[in-house]
Amino acid sequence: MNSIKSYISEHKDRMLNELLELLKIPSISANSDYEKDVIKTAESVKSHLEKAGCDHVEICETPGYPIVYGEKIISNDLPTVLVYGHYDVQPPDPLDLWDSPPFEPVIKETQLHPDGAIFARGSCDDKGQFFMHVKALEYMTKEGQLPCNVKFMIEGEEEVGSESLSWFVPRNKEKLANDVILISDTGMIAKDVPSITTGLRGLSYVEVEVTGPNRDLHSGLYGGAVANPINILTKMIASLHDENNHITIPGFYDKVEELSREERNKMAEAPFSLEDYKSALDIEAVYGEAGYTTNERNSIRPTLDVNGIWGGYTGEGAKTVIASKAYAKISMRLVPHQDWHEITDLFKKHFEAIAPKGVTVEVKPHHGGQGYVTPIDNIGYQAASKAYKTTFEKTPIPQRSGGSIPIVALFEKELKSKTILMGFGLDSDAIHSPNEHFGVWNYFKGIETIPWFYKYFSELSTKA
Amino acid sequence: MNSIKSYISEHKDRMLNELLELLKIPSISANSDYEKDVIKTAESVKSHLEKAGCDHVEICETPGYPIVYGEKIISNDLPTVLVYGHYDVQPPDPLDLWDSPPFEPVIKETQLHPDGAIFARGSCDDKGQFFMHVKALEYMTKEGQLPCNVKFMIEGEEEVGSESLSWFVPRNKEKLANDVILISDTGMIAKDVPSITTGLRGLSYVEVEVTGPNRDLHSGLYGGAVANPINILTKMIASLHDENNHITIPGFYDKVEELSREERNKMAEAPFSLEDYKSALDIEAVYGEAGYTTNERNSIRPTLDVNGIWGGYTGEGAKTVIASKAYAKISMRLVPHQDWHEITDLFKKHFEAIAPKGVTVEVKPHHGGQGYVTPIDNIGYQAASKAYKTTFEKTPIPQRSGGSIPIVALFEKELKSKTILMGFGLDSDAIHSPNEHFGVWNYFKGIETIPWFYKYFSELSTKA
Repeated sequence: MNSIKSYISEHKDRMLNELLELLKIPSISANSDYEKDVIKTAESVKSHLEKAGCDHVEICETPGYPIVYGEKIISNDLPTVLVYGHYDVQPPDPLDLWDSPPFEPVIKETQLHPDGAIFARGSCDDKGQFFMHVKALEYMTKEGQLPCNVKFMIEGEEEVGSESLSWFVPRNKEKLANDVILISDTGMIAKDVPSITTGLRGLSYVEVEVTGPNRDLHSGLYGGAVANPINILTKMIASLHDENNHITIPGFYDKVEELSREERNKMAEAPFSLEDYKSALDIEAVYGEAGYTTNERNSIRPTLDVNGIWGGYTGEGAKTVIASKAYAKISMRLVPHQDWHEITDLFKKHFEAIAPKGVTVEVKPHHGGQGYVTPIDNIGYQAASKAYKTTFEKTPIPQRSGGSIPIVALFEKELKSKTILMGFGLDSDAIHSPNEHFGVWNYFKGIETIPWFYKYFSELSTKA
Repeated sequence: MNSIKSYISEHKDRMLNELLELLKIPSISANSDYEKDVIKTAESVKSHLEKAGCDHVEICETPGYPIVYGEKIISNDLPTVLVYGHYDVQPPDPLDLWDSPPFEPVIKETQLHPDGAIFARGSCDDKGQFFMHVKALEYMTKEGQLPCNVKFMIEGEEEVGSESLSWFVPRNKEKLANDVILISDTGMIAKDVPSITTGLRGLSYVEVEVTGPNRDLHSGLYGGAVANPINILTKMIASLHDENNHITIPGFYDKVEELSREERNKMAEAPFSLEDYKSALDIEAVYGEAGYTTNERNSIRPTLDVNGIWGGYTGEGAKTVIASKAYAKISMRLVPHQDWHEITDLFKKHFEAIAPKGVTVEVKPHHGGQGYVTPIDNIGYQAASKAYKTTFEKTPIPQRSGGSIPIVALFEKELKSKTILMGFGLDSDAIHSPNEHFGVWNYFKGIETIPWFYKYFSELSTKA
């Protein structure tokens, strides 16, 4: 494995250019205008996997966009690593906020990336990150360093809910059988503070509609005499949190696991400056559930946020109207053990129950996903930890993320294996936003670290 | 005056078509895209006043949209009636709820209007209603029946706060000098229950903006850890009413006059069916301030309603975002003695005070106006009452309206004269809503009734 550094150094320009070419294809899964580009990207991924040394690669058809599957099987006696990633990207809107076109990658220096960062949609999420695994495989096969079997499953619908993956995985359990799943689709705390994501929050996303009178009314003639759907909606939403910012939905916290003081103390060791956090967001104070720190609030605690609200007259000037309807999109981030179907039901029942007479309420569940935790005594976690220790010369910090990757819970259920989240992006990489980028240093550091994971995982598996 | 009925019968089609032509011009004062149409409407009003017999008409420039002034002066010894109206209209949104395009008037029968109703934005509010006065003038001049002087002042900014009128009136006191002001911009209880509006509510209209983090954030990574401006806005708005639906702004009720039990009993005599009211709006229950009836809530009590709210992602599907900003348009209807400037200040202070740390709040006052009451022993009221008695064969009921015509208080202050509100619309005419309409019967009944007002007012003025 020690030759990885010199291999990278020798092939640096090609490895970078191959990624830039991949980033030029606008594989926007949310917009059917880009269907051909999404397919073209799948084909390109297939070709890269073949060149990197997979001895079998196929484009697997699904009800939606295809899944690229590749494998290099050395021996049935050796452990198998399954790498998951996605080749589709978020829509780049709003386009006018990009400093350079989203599908014409450019490398520019930034304060956090003095070695340059690749600016393009998908550079960090997730083309740049899954491609590190392709290049790590290339090194291991070319240099005879692959210590175990490897499988790749790269999908094209992650940004639109991974529906075809949910269809594909249960139908291909044998093909996908593995000892550990490896994903790079998250971030790390800082370039000098490596971290491994050990927890993800679940999600329940709903849309609510409050209907009052059967038409918009003049607020002078009816104001004060009928239930105004917007006023009612604000009252109903406001009542979902109490004065301590606890969520008031009955049963909401029933399955939430309280972390021990010891675990919380360990979490608190992660470097974090509240002043920097506030100043980065231009806020005078943080806000959240009483009794928890900022890092606890956005990782180990469930939350409820309004993501959008609308109703009545929202144009220029003034209109004295009582709207017939008011709407909101509301999402709840869940922690492990909270079942998103159950939470969606609890929300629906509660929200309908608190509607006063004079309005009717409709709750439409949108989508959701389960939370997930990787125990740090898992050998996959230990292998990853040793790999970071080797290349970063620091033990990585286990970190719970506030975000959700719903397919991780699906993998555990269907494939019975744990997922290790080795993310090399930074929070500031602007994924899902204009000017998404991925550090060149981070890209090569990923390629350098991943082979060590294979080595340590194979060693620990043999011992076990 | 007895010839009015035959005059209407002879000119019926033309009188209707002239109104339909006027309704075709989209004079939306709130949207600057329609600037040319607003001006074109003013020019059309000028032309109609000339043709109706005014001997001087001018388009008076203001800082905003022009005011059309016209007069027919017979003698300085005779009393003068000043007619006020407005040629601008509300925006027609939401367009998809109109059964026919808002600026392509059509006449259709309805249950309440078996003779047909004119469906178009502005048909009732206020083109159709002020145009009755133009046609009444036409009759009186053509048939030599005008018993006094008459002045017209038709403005183009009523739907956006009449700011230019507030500028114009104090600068033109002599030109506008009058003995009584006549306005048709309100409704009556029913076609067989004529009524005269004797009280109007005042108005304070504000827009609020809540800012949290300096950019939109990913709700997974930040959810629960920072103040979400939409959640905060709902909490702040919800707190503006207590559990009895009293408004919680300190000092808000200080100047509100409590009506005596006797006055409230008199009000309660007006025909009103709560079941019909609920069924017309498709609501299971009414909603409002504890201790007051529906008709009290929307007339003698001040109220606070959200007229519009928006923030975050409001498109199709789901986006897990914490918006940087959330907005609402909020209006308060005020009762006589509540000063709208003072109430606006109280709102602003209170709303800023209840903002939690972590967000900043901006309150932008939009516009407002004072409430108003006409005493029923005023000769203007008596003349109007006799006019209705003549044409409806019923004494009209004095009625407080929940709406606001802020300029009525301005007229009293600047011109020292009382305003008589002879409205011919019905509550169900859907003003400010999709499918606004105005009964053809009501239109002609107004034209028939107005000349009698001139006759009786002149007679009562001479006696006085």
